[in-house]
This record gives sequence, C-alpha cells and structure tokens, in this order.
Amino acid sequence: MNVSFFQELLQSISERGRQLLESREPAPISAATLVEASRRLLSGHGEASGVALARQVLCSYRDCPPEQQKVFFDGLLKEFAPPHDALAEACRRYLENPGAEQVSALFRACEPPRQELFRRLNQAPGGTAELIAMRRLLLQQLKAKPELIAVDQDLQHLLTSWFNRGFLVLRRIDWSTPASILEKIIRYEAVHEIRDWDDLRSRLQPADRRCFAFFHPALAEEPLIFVEVALTRSMPGAIDEILEQRPDGVAAEEPDTAVFYSISNCQEGLRGISFGNFLIKQVVEELAREVPSLRNFVTLSPVPGFRRWLDGLDGDARLAPIAADCLKALKGDSAPPPRLEQPLLALAAEYFLNAKNAEGRPLDPVARFHLGNGARLERLNWRGDLSPGGLRQAAGLMVNYRYELRQIEKNHEAYANQGTVMASPEVKRHATLLRKANS
Amino acid sequence: MNVSFFQELLQSISERGRQLLESREPAPISAATLVEASRRLLSGHGEASGVALARQVLCSYRDCPPEQQKVFFDGLLKEFAPPHDALAEACRRYLENPGAEQVSALFRACEPPRQELFRRLNQAPGGTAELIAMRRLLLQQLKAKPELIAVDQDLQHLLTSWFNRGFLVLRRIDWSTPASILEKIIRYEAVHEIRDWDDLRSRLQPADRRCFAFFHPALAEEPLIFVEVALTRSMPGAIDEILEQRPDGVAAEEPDTAVFYSISNCQEGLRGISFGNFLIKQVVEELAREVPSLRNFVTLSPVPGFRRWLDGLDGDARLAPIAADCLKALKGDSAPPPRLEQPLLALAAEYFLNAKNAEGRPLDPVARFHLGNGARLERLNWRGDLSPGGLRQAAGLMVNYRYELRQIEKNHEAYANQGTVMASPEVKRHATLLRKANS
Amino acid sequence: MNVSFFQELLQSISERGRQLLESREPAPISAATLVEASRRLLSGHGEASGVALARQVLCSYRDCPPEQQKVFFDGLLKEFAPPHDALAEACRRYLENPGAEQVSALFRACEPPRQELFRRLNQAPGGTAELIAMRRLLLQQLKAKPELIAVDQDLQHLLTSWFNRGFLVLRRIDWSTPASILEKIIRYEAVHEIRDWDDLRSRLQPADRRCFAFFHPALAEEPLIFVEVALTRSMPGAIDEILEQRPDGVAAEEPDTAVFYSISNCQEGLRGISFGNFLIKQVVEELAREVPSLRNFVTLSPVPGFRRWLDGLDGDARLAPIAADCLKALKGDSAPPPRLEQPLLALAAEYFLNAKNAEGRPLDPVARFHLGNGARLERLNWRGDLSPGGLRQAAGLMVNYRYELRQIEKNHEAYANQGTVMASPEVKRHATLLRKANS
Amino acid sequence: MNVSFFQELLQSISERGRQLLESREPAPISAATLVEASRRLLSGHGEASGVALARQVLCSYRDCPPEQQKVFFDGLLKEFAPPHDALAEACRRYLENPGAEQVSALFRACEPPRQELFRRLNQAPGGTAELIAMRRLLLQQLKAKPELIAVDQDLQHLLTSWFNRGFLVLRRIDWSTPASILEKIIRYEAVHEIRDWDDLRSRLQPADRRCFAFFHPALAEEPLIFVEVALTRSMPGAIDEILEQRPDGVAAEEPDTAVFYSISNCQEGLRGISFGNFLIKQVVEELAREVPSLRNFVTLSPVPGFRRWLDGLDGDARLAPIAADCLKALKGDSAPPPRLEQPLLALAAEYFLNAKNAEGRPLDPVARFHLGNGARLERLNWRGDLSPGGLRQAAGLMVNYRYELRQIEKNHEAYANQGTVMASPEVKRHATLLRKANS
Repeated sequence: MNVSFFQELLQSISERGRQLLESREPAPISAATLVEASRRLLSGHGEASGVALARQVLCSYRDCPPEQQKVFFDGLLKEFAPPHDALAEACRRYLENPGAEQVSALFRACEPPRQELFRRLNQAPGGTAELIAMRRLLLQQLKAKPELIAVDQDLQHLLTSWFNRGFLVLRRIDWSTPASILEKIIRYEAVHEIRDWDDLRSRLQPADRRCFAFFHPALAEEPLIFVEVALTRSMPGAIDEILEQRPDGVAAEEPDTAVFYSISNCQEGLRGISFGNFLIKQVVEELAREVPSLRNFVTLSPVPGFRRWLDGLDGDARLAPIAADCLKALKGDSAPPPRLEQPLLALAAEYFLNAKNAEGRPLDPVARFHLGNGARLERLNWRGDLSPGGLRQAAGLMVNYRYELRQIEKNHEAYANQGTVMASPEVKRHATLLRKANS
Repeated sequence: MNVSFFQELLQSISERGRQLLESREPAPISAATLVEASRRLLSGHGEASGVALARQVLCSYRDCPPEQQKVFFDGLLKEFAPPHDALAEACRRYLENPGAEQVSALFRACEPPRQELFRRLNQAPGGTAELIAMRRLLLQQLKAKPELIAVDQDLQHLLTSWFNRGFLVLRRIDWSTPASILEKIIRYEAVHEIRDWDDLRSRLQPADRRCFAFFHPALAEEPLIFVEVALTRSMPGAIDEILEQRPDGVAAEEPDTAVFYSISNCQEGLRGISFGNFLIKQVVEELAREVPSLRNFVTLSPVPGFRRWLDGLDGDARLAPIAADCLKALKGDSAPPPRLEQPLLALAAEYFLNAKNAEGRPLDPVARFHLGNGARLERLNWRGDLSPGGLRQAAGLMVNYRYELRQIEKNHEAYANQGTVMASPEVKRHATLLRKANS
Repeated sequence: MNVSFFQELLQSISERGRQLLESREPAPISAATLVEASRRLLSGHGEASGVALARQVLCSYRDCPPEQQKVFFDGLLKEFAPPHDALAEACRRYLENPGAEQVSALFRACEPPRQELFRRLNQAPGGTAELIAMRRLLLQQLKAKPELIAVDQDLQHLLTSWFNRGFLVLRRIDWSTPASILEKIIRYEAVHEIRDWDDLRSRLQPADRRCFAFFHPALAEEPLIFVEVALTRSMPGAIDEILEQRPDGVAAEEPDTAVFYSISNCQEGLRGISFGNFLIKQVVEELAREVPSLRNFVTLSPVPGFRRWLDGLDGDARLAPIAADCLKALKGDSAPPPRLEQPLLALAAEYFLNAKNAEGRPLDPVARFHLGNGARLERLNWRGDLSPGGLRQAAGLMVNYRYELRQIEKNHEAYANQGTVMASPEVKRHATLLRKANS
Repeated sequence: MNVSFFQELLQSISERGRQLLESREPAPISAATLVEASRRLLSGHGEASGVALARQVLCSYRDCPPEQQKVFFDGLLKEFAPPHDALAEACRRYLENPGAEQVSALFRACEPPRQELFRRLNQAPGGTAELIAMRRLLLQQLKAKPELIAVDQDLQHLLTSWFNRGFLVLRRIDWSTPASILEKIIRYEAVHEIRDWDDLRSRLQPADRRCFAFFHPALAEEPLIFVEVALTRSMPGAIDEILEQRPDGVAAEEPDTAVFYSISNCQEGLRGISFGNFLIKQVVEELAREVPSLRNFVTLSPVPGFRRWLDGLDGDARLAPIAADCLKALKGDSAPPPRLEQPLLALAAEYFLNAKNAEGRPLDPVARFHLGNGARLERLNWRGDLSPGGLRQAAGLMVNYRYELRQIEKNHEAYANQGTVMASPEVKRHATLLRKANS
C-alpha cells in the first residue's frame, strides 16, 4: 500500500534513473552483434518485447569492449541512415508536387532510423543516462572520424527535445542535500575548484549563500548545470571577497545584490544543449521572490581569453606598446603593480568592446554567453582573481555582468542583430581613456 | 532551507505541472496576433526572453475565443510549414549528391518550424499540458479540415518522443491516493463505469484488487492510462464475478490469477500514442514480484464489434441462418437463453478467427490490441456481461486473453507477419463445431 | 538504497502507525491469560524480548472476546495498582523526614505499575493506536464500573503527555489529501454533517475554503481534530451563507474575515485531552501569514444548550413569559417569525451572560470552550441555522466568537479568575433591552 | 495547495524540530525572572497563551548567561517541588484509608510541578531539543550539586516516556542521506573514529556495509543512536578486517554473517534512556528480511576494562604471575608477541567469566550491555585491535557477542536472575586452561 502518492511517484522516477543496467566485465560482444540486435529492436520484435529488448541492447553495448563500441558507431552511421531509394523518391515527388502531403512523406523518409532506434533504447530503465554516456564517447570520436557528426546530430536532436526546459526542475542545493548529489557538485565545479567538504559547506551553508541546479526527472541523481550565488551588500570586485572563509553568521543584513560567481555544466554527453540562460533567469526570479531586498543581479566572471589576447597584440600598432609594458610587469605570475591599473583596464575595455572572433562576436567566450543572454558588461575588476590561474588566464582580471530583467530582451536583440556589446558607461570610459592616451 | 531533496524535487515537478497559465475570460485576441507572437517566439526574442514569451503565447492562445483558436491552427499549417524554396533546394542537392551532409541538410530543411515552435511553447510552466489540450481541440477539427493533419503529425511526433516509455512512471492507485487523482480515475474509466466513490473504493481497497497507472513527470496530476486488476483463484468468465460488491476481507488466499478487467486511456490529446502494451507488461512484472503465487495473467475483455458483425451477416450463406436464430432470441436485450450457448460461441470463434478488416486484421479492435501485444485468445464467455450495454454491444459475450511473457514475442511475430490469430485449442474447437454443424 | 532520507523517515513512521496487529477471529483468550502476559511484560522478560512480547500482549488483547477485555480492565485495576505495603512505607518515611529523596521515593512508589505497563505496550508497532482504542472501550465501561476511573486516569495521564502539543503536526486538508484521510473527515465531522464526497469537495476545493487538522506522527493516518474555515468579506450570520453550494471561482477577493465554522474532535479514545485551543490559535497564525488581508478571526458556532434552557425557564418569573411566547411560536420546528427577533436575542444574551452551571461557568459548552480560550462573544444571530437540527437545539440561534490574539490572555484571565463572560457591547445591549422590557 | 499529504506532514514535523528558538547574545536575564516566567506558564496564563509563553520562557532560558541557567536549576529544585503541606496531607489520608481514590490523590500530590512545567515548555516549537540541551547542562552540574538529581529524575522520567520505542523510527543511513545528518554521524561516532568524508563513505557506500539509526519525529535531524554493520562470510576477529579500505565491489557474495562493529549514542541529554537493545534487535530483523542468506548476527566489540583489570591483578595469587608476564611483554604499546596468545586468552576468559563489580555483574561495561540484551559471549580475539588505543585499553583484545533471537530471552533471564555469563564452549575452555595451568 502506498503511503504517499507523489512521494512514491518520485521514488519510482528516481529508481528508474538509477536502475542502470547491471555492468559486467567487458564481454566479447562484437559491433556486428550489436547492429543486429539494434535491427531487431527497430523491427516488430521491438514492439512486442518492448523494454526487455531495449535493455538487452544497451547492456550488450555497455559490456562490449570500447573498440567495438566505436565500430558500433560506424554501424549507426551506415546501417541506420535513411534508405537512399526511398528518400530520393520522396525528393522527386516533392519537387514535382510540393504539397503538404509530400512534405510529410519527405520528413518521414529523411528522419534517420537511428532516431527511432535511440527512442526505443530510451524505453529501457536507465536508458536516458546510457544514451548520454554513449554520446560522450561519440563526441570523443568526432575528431578522429568527423563523419560521425551525422550520428551525433541525431542524438543531439533527441536530447535537445527531451531536455526541453519545460521538463527541467530547478532545485536548491544546500547542506541537507544528499551526499551523493553533493559529491557531484564537488566533482563538476569547473570555475573555482571546491577543495573538500568543508569548502563545499562554506559555499552552501551560510545564510548568504545559495546554490541551484537543474535536474531532469529521468536522471534524478545527476545535476545538469548548477550556479553558485553569494548575497552581498554591493557588487564584489574580487573572487576572494566571496570565497574566503568567514566566521559563520556574519551574513549581510538585507543584501541588495545577488552575485552569480560560478556556473558549471555537469554532463559532457549533453554538450551543446544550453541550460545556462534558463538557469540564470529562473534563479533571478527565485531569489527576487525569496529575498525582496535584492536589487542587483550580477555575475563575478572570469575572462578566460584576456591574457592570450594580450600576448598576441604584437602586431597592433596602437595597443602593442601598452600591452608589452603590462606583460613585462606581469612576469612570473606576480600580481599586477598599482601603476598598471589604468592601462590594464583600458586594454580590458578594448578586449571586450572591440576584439572579435571570425563571426564578429566578442573573442571572450564567457562574454558571448552572458551578452547573448541579454546581460550587460557592468564593471572591469583589475585585481579580481590574483590566484596563479587567474593571473595566467586573465592577468588577474574579472568582470561583472548585470542581468536586468527588463533590459534583457532589448540587450539580446542589439547583440544578436548588430553585434552590439552592451556595456556600462564606466566600461566605455576605460576604452575612451585608451584612445585619448593614444591620441 | 529544503527538508528533503528528492521530496522537493518532485514537488517542483508537480507544481510546474499544475502551474497552468492563469485563465481569464476569453479576450478579443485574434489568430493573427497569435501567429505574430509565435513568430517572435521562434526568433531571437524567444531565445532571450525564454520562458516568459512562451508563457505569454500560451496564455493568449488559451484566452482567445475558440473560433480564433481554430483560425490559429490554419496559421500553424500555412505559416510554420517548411519554406518551399529552401526545401526544394535541399532536395535537388541531395539528388545530385546523396551524401550524409546532404541528408542532414534535407532533414533540417524539412522539419517544419512548427516543431520548434511547439518545443519552445513547451518551455513554459504547464506548457506540456497546454499542448496536449491544443491537440485535443485540433483532433476535433480534423474531420472538418483534413489538411490540418500536417499540424497534427508534428504535434504527435513531438508528444510521442516526449512521452517515451522511458519517461513514464508506473504508480499504484489505491485508497490512499489523493482524491484529486481518484476523481480522475472515476471520470476516465471507459470500460465499466465507476458509479461513485463507494464503487471506486470497492475496486481499490480490497486486498485482492489493484489499480496501476502511468504518469509523466511534467503532468504529475494526470494519469495517462490505467488498468484495473482483480486477483482470483481462477479465470473469471463474467464481469459480475469481479464487480459485484463483496463483504470485505474475503480475498482469495494465494491467488493464482491476475485479471486485467479494465484499461482506460485518459488523455484525448495523446490519442495514437500507445501506452497500453507497456502498461500491461510492466504490471505483469510488478504483480509477479509482489504476489509470487500468481501463475496466470489474463484479461476479461469486452467484444465491442460482435453484435454489429452479427447484425451484418445476412449475406453470409453459411453463417446467416445461425446468426438470425440467435438474433431473434436476443430481442429486447434479454439474456441469451441456454440453447444459444453453442451457436453463440461458435459464431464468436468465427468472429475472432476469420472476420477481418480491410488490412486483414481481426475486425474486433480489442482483439487487435491484445493480439498485437502478443497475447493469445484464451476463452469465450457467452454470458460474460449481461448488462444492457454488454448485450447490445456483444450479445453478452466477453473473452479472456492470456499474457504469457515467454510466448509474447513469438505470438506477436506470427500475428504481425502472417496475421495469425493465436487462440487456445478450446476457442478453435468452437470454430470447428460450427464448420461441422454446417457440413 | 534510500531515495530520500526524510521521505522514508516519514514513510517508516506512517507504516509503523498502520502496522496494527493482524486481527484474527476472537480467540478464547481469558483475561487471566492477559494479566499473566502483562506481568511477564513488566518483568525482565519484557526487557529482553522488548517489542515482541508487547506486540503479543496487544494482539491477545485485541483478539480476545469483548467481555474478557472488560474483565482484563479489572485486572489492570487490581493487579497493577501500586503495592500497598511499599506505598504505605514511603508515606511514613516522607512524613517522618520530608526531604527531596523521600519525595522521589514516594513518587516511584505511587506511580501505578499500570503506567509502566502501558509504556511497554506502546513499544509495539501500532501500540499507540491500540492503547487509544483500549481507552475508548474503557471509557464506555466507566458508567457501569466507576472504579475503573483509576485505570483511565493512568491512561489519560500518559496520552496527555504523549500527545503534547509539541509533538502534534498541523496539516492542511485539501482535495489532494489521500482519500483514506478524507473519508475520516467525512466520518468525524460532528457539527455540520458532510453528506457525501461532493459536499466534502465544496468545503475543501474552493479558493476561499480551508481545512486544517492536527496529526501525531505515531498515528499518521488519523486526524486528531480538525477545523473548517471560510474566508469571507464580512462576519456571516447564518451557516447557509457558508455551506450552500456556490459556482466555482466566486471566492471573495481580498477576504478580510476567517470564519471557523466547524471544529470536530476525532478520537474518542483521546477524550479529555484538549487540542482545540492550540488548533485555533495556530490556524489563526497560519492564515494571517498566508492571507495578509485577513483582519477578523471569528467563529460561526452552534448554541447546543439554548433550547433546553428555554424549555426549562418555567420557574423563572422574569423570563418565563417571554420564553413561553417564543416557544409557542417555534412549534413544529418552524423558523422563528420576525416578531421573535428581539425577544429571542434578548433571551440569548441572558443565556450567555447569566445562565451558569454548578461551577459558575456559562451553561453553554461551546461558550465555555471559546471563552476559556480567550475569545469574546461577538454577535448573536437569531436566524443562524434554520435546519431542523438547528431549530430543535437552539431555536435557530448561532453566535460568533471573536479571536483577537492581543486580547486572548486578558480575556482568558478575566474568565478564569472572575468568570467574566467577555462580550461585545452589542451582545450586552441585547441583555439590557430585556431588563428594560421587564422593568 | 499541498502536493503530497504525508510528504508535507513530515516536512512540518521536521521544520518544527529545527525551528529552534532564535538565539541572541546572552541577555542579562536573571534566574529569578526565569522562575517567575515559569510560574506564569504553569498558571492559567500558560493555558491561554499556550505555545507563545512557552517559547518565550525557553528563549529567555537559552539567552541568559550560563551561571544564571545554573541558578535557575536551583529554582526548579526548590520552587517547583511538590508542596509539602498538600503532600503530607495526602500521605496521612492514604495511611488512614488506603483506597484507589487516595492513591490517585497521592499521585497527583507528589508529581512535582516541574513535570508539568517541562511538559508545557515542550509545547513550543523546538521545545524537545531545548529540553534535551537543558538536561545535558543539568547532568554536568550533578557532580557539584548532587541534590539536583531530583530535577534530573523528573526530566529523565518525561524524556523516557516521550522517547518510548514506539515513537522511534529506524532509518538506514547511507550515501544518499543528507550531508547535514552525515556530519553528525562523523561527529558522534564513539568507537572507531571516522576520520573524514572518504572514511565515512567507505562505511556507508559498499554493498556489504550498512548503517542504521533511530530518530524521533520531534528531532528529525538528530540521530539518537546508530550502529554500523558489515556483512561478511565469517565472524571477523580483528577490526582491521572491517575498516581497511578495500577496492569497491568486492562485497562478499551471499554473506552469512552480519557484524555490528560500532554502536554510538548521540545525545548526551538523553543519557540513561536506553535505545541500544531495541536498535540491535530491530536491525537484526531488518537485515534478516533484506539479506536472506544471513545466518549469524554477531558483534565485534571492544573490551574497555581489560587492561585496567590486568594492571590491578597484583594481589591475586593465582593470576598475578601470568598477568605480570603479559604486561612485561606489552610494554610500550607493542603488539603482543605470539607466545602471549594462550595466557592472554585465558586471562580474558577469566576477566569475562569471573571478574565482577559491586553488583555482581561483569566488570566490563560492554559485556554488561550485550549480556543484558540476551547475547552470548562467542569468541575472544587476542589480536583484535592493535591500534595504540586498542592496546592501551584492552591489550589488543576484541570479542564477539552473538545475538540469536531464539535464545535471547533465555540468556537474558539467566543473566538477570543468576548473573550467569552466557559464553560459548570455546570461551569457557580458555578459562579451564588457565585453571589447569595453575593446578
């Protein structure tokens, strides 16, 4: 007899998620066997035996030796592509008579049978997790075998649909979260390493800290992406203000600023499926509701490409001298001396406002992410991260992006359509100074 | 601070599911406005404003007058179809050079933008439920406007993928299930009406009764399909043996038979997405685990097409005389007299084994379902349902199908490939008697 | 592996609560056997076998015939009373030397071994529920055997301690509550009968209705007491305003008044252990938090003793004539005619303000409850309940009590110390009118 | 609207438990003020204001300086003892006429008002936790002020009743338990220190490890007692076999033995309220159900008093020479050399079988616990714990006790009545050898 309906509903979900297929020692299963079993699954057998056959294929895949798994990818590429004759016929018919019916027929003919195969594999308990693991391996093969991109496109197409934001669940992560989830937070943190459980606790337990993650019901024990937040009285300019251990209980009274200081994707097998934009916006909404005193929603973000850009400025007549001067003073990963403040900030402004990649977007990948979300570049902090990593990557620079919900759409549009980098007057002023200095 | 991680995880899921968009009085929103808003959602605006814009479109759709909703379906058909020029170009390229890249390009070109629109609408809280409601309305329009089938195919394609069995959760329904779910069981029961809460309780609470349903996490308060089961000491031949009120506690000791006596689909908007096969098989597994004494898994099923078939036998030289005799005796929905036992059973055997539809499958839809699942026709019960409905529909006939897990694949294959109706020797004998009688 | 820690914690609690001992047919177990088993449980055997022996005694008690259960109560009275010699000795020692040590010894000597026996019985799964059932039966015996009061005092002493408000949990009851709980709400409603599930739904589901209950973790499926509340725009004067079926969704916008219109105790075996005071006050706090627009917290209460008091006024020179006039007009349970408004209200004021029981408290038991909680009598409603029951019991009268948290302590004190009936000026005015009329 | 009834029921419980009173800086509240507030709480004020006043007293107690808290204990002792005159009168009446009514009156007169005070304090949210903390402080004062024992007896009396086994919940502790609970397991482990989170994981996560704890619903985030268990293929003789890190996944197939290798009480404020006996027995039942291959339920236990006993044998003519020999070889906490095996085991047997305390019970406290529970001393392991602590405390000795459910009651009785130490033939043989060696 069930105690609580929804309680057990979730329990079932979660158990299914965990119920990964029992692993055995790699068995001498060949890729050919796997392809054959997959064909059976796609046929009427699959309909009748349903879940059982899907489970068996996934088990076999998982237990077979890695090199055979890779050969199996070739099988997926060649044996489960749309059959040429039917597709060509559908093309011809459409060209002859481009009606709705012909479009439908064309769509059916060009959807690769792989997609239906993946959907049937997903019917097995733990299937979703297994498909994500499969894609992780596949992504690693892409460099060596670029033609596998066709298989990956199908997997990504399905996973994008399945991990639609409407199916994701935002969960707060705190000190009463199960340890099995928390150890994954430690492992997946990609921006500011979590050294141990005490370090983790210092990011979760204080009254002025928050952490939120997205989960998917079919993967209930695996965070997809998470963000760490500090609630403060003003916009911080250095990561140490956030991460240094503080005596418990000195939380800011009435914080007015929420600082997103770390965002990490967790699932390699979901690469290219974007959650960050949704996560930030929902967390802004949650926090605004929970802590009504909050007025500012900003990030404290790394600038991963800044130092490399500085290093490559030799050929730039205008900037090279200033850059050279800075780089000399930054030898040996020492913190930048006070006299570098102006030049570094000016160069940073230049980097964000004018340095572009091949698509005409900012060079900096973190900038592309936040600007693309509709945030604006708010402040440059020249002594933001003086750790060895921070100096090596960004000469100590960190920046704040600001999320203002009412401006997001406008900002995004300006960025998307004209490539405009929305920046605060202060940031723009730094760039002006450089130009003045040069003139 | 969260009390229990998974507990709240589910709560969030469930709240999202319920968080249907606040309904207002139908507003004078025109289909044109909806189409325009949908276009914005598909553009970059949609990316930036994410969930908010999706929510707004769904709200507008829901609040606009029904006739405008229907006009909006036309918009979906015409304005969000694949653009002809690009698709034609992709076809030509493929025909010239049928490589993997060209297939991918073709696939992208012929996936209707509608699909991406639906995916974006699904991002809103409660979006899945709203799309299902939209499809229900759409299905009602299909008769009047058959061309809308193209829109429906896209919706069905997505919903089939999203309601993949891997995302469904089996839940037992019992007397401690929330009343809000139970009232839906009462409402959705489609085979043997549940008259009131006492009737419901008599199907859930006794120790020898079970009810299971599939749920989807994004629709946590809505059963998708459910099955009612009785645990007995032998295969019952009449529905009254199951449904009549019994004093509490006289459950069969050590039941050996699980009888699936009612299966009901709940969501009109998920029509054509099949859950029954999966449900029956998982419930068989669950029950086998929970009640080790069970040996037989059978149904007690209606025969919805039998009487109509009987009524239409006039032209059949061999069967018409027997049928006419039976029909005469069945006037006025009276129970068939004893002397009809043999002829009725013989006709029934004939109906199941030899009466076929245009596709060469059995005429009876329930038979097609269970035989397609790999079950076998086990027994014909000539006085199975003597209620007015049972007599009118099937001359009182009910049948048992048997699910034997080890035979399912073989049975399914024989049925799928050769159209063979797997039936017990006893059923076949009834058919033989008729032939003998005739000869 | 456990999914969710607290989730399962509760599940365990709840299962223990339900795990009542398997009932069998009454067995020929004699009270003597029960007494003997109880003695073993109190001895060292009980320590070693712990829960198992307790369970066995409770099972035996439950399965033995009712008349033997009653004989067992005698055993509890006589065989598990404090042993005389030791107690007398402890008394003498205390009288000789009234030190702290002697008090402790005396306390140990005069705590009846029954209490320890009940504590040990409570160790069995489901023990608490079983002891409550035992007390229910015991209470029924008290009239016939008043000496059993000693056994009852011990049970009540323990249950009062165990059902301390600190261990109770307030839960909202609504339409998503398990049906197994809801059917108990239907069954236990003691003030305004809930006719069926639709009636229940009309009290739970509308946005302006609330229901709250206290639960105890060891009895998780049994409400202890519950209150039904309506949120309105003003203080209602008649129960029909609350209970009549209304079209859904016409909830008062911004309600300013919470009306407690029904409070029911559920557990006969917990009689005399008071939860109502705590329940009302916590629900006031909950509602004030949830619905900030609420300003007034009032009841709409029956007046169970009014008609009987009226009927007995013959000897009262001052009131008898008016009462006789009223009673004549109320023949046959017809609604009181308009001309009775003034006299009935005046008599009602008299009834509340001046009619006292032997202890000098108001005659009306509901009045004693609310006034004892610190509420004030706010308004008399002469056509409050025109149902046959309402007329028979109270000539149609209902009243409002008002809970104003800041006045509660003062009101209670005045009532507790001087017996003052706190009443609004309006109520007092009604009494004055009578005096004037009389003078 | 509540999602899940029982889910939220628990959530409420748990929140109440946590809702400890907001702590402030120690305020200049005097013990006299506390006593005065307590008096108000016991009076009618307490009834009316209920929870609020209780909360206020607890807050004041918690916020007042420690020395005033201690003075408050004096107040509890003197001001809330049974009033002498009434008690003396009740004694006299009982001696005159020792009827049931007089016993009741006597019981009421000699229950200290403190008990009712504690019960009222418990009504506040978090009250139970606060009372447990109060008792912890009180216990620390007992040495300095033995007369406070009277206050402690009252607190212990109530807590024993409230923490009745029937209200406790057994929960498995594993790697998906909330971190906030797990850090308490690390902190409270009292037998074999848990060094860090990795060490903890190695005791929880492997398939052959278990950990169970008792919880009380009013204290849902605090384990009361927990036991760590290893599932093995035979009875282990040394703690290293259990605790050494093993590669994951080498769990014994079909374990036949459950080894309870660590039991820790967690709440100092519940000292003297025994949970261990219940815990072991319920865990035996749980494990027997979960792992049907288990045949043996044993402990691997420390022998905390062995070395001290050895050190004190000088005066024992028979044993002193052997002990001296052993002790010489054990200098400097080195592991005992092989030749000590026989003499050490013989001395150990002597220690368990014949060394008694003043009450005639075994000297060893762990032995008293397990023998009192009905276990039997199964095996002596002379190299059981060669850690510095193990050598210093017990010369490396560890022992196994065996719990055989069918023998428990008999064993307990022999121990309780005749002081018999139930021991295996092997253990007895060791003692015999010593005697032989001596003869």
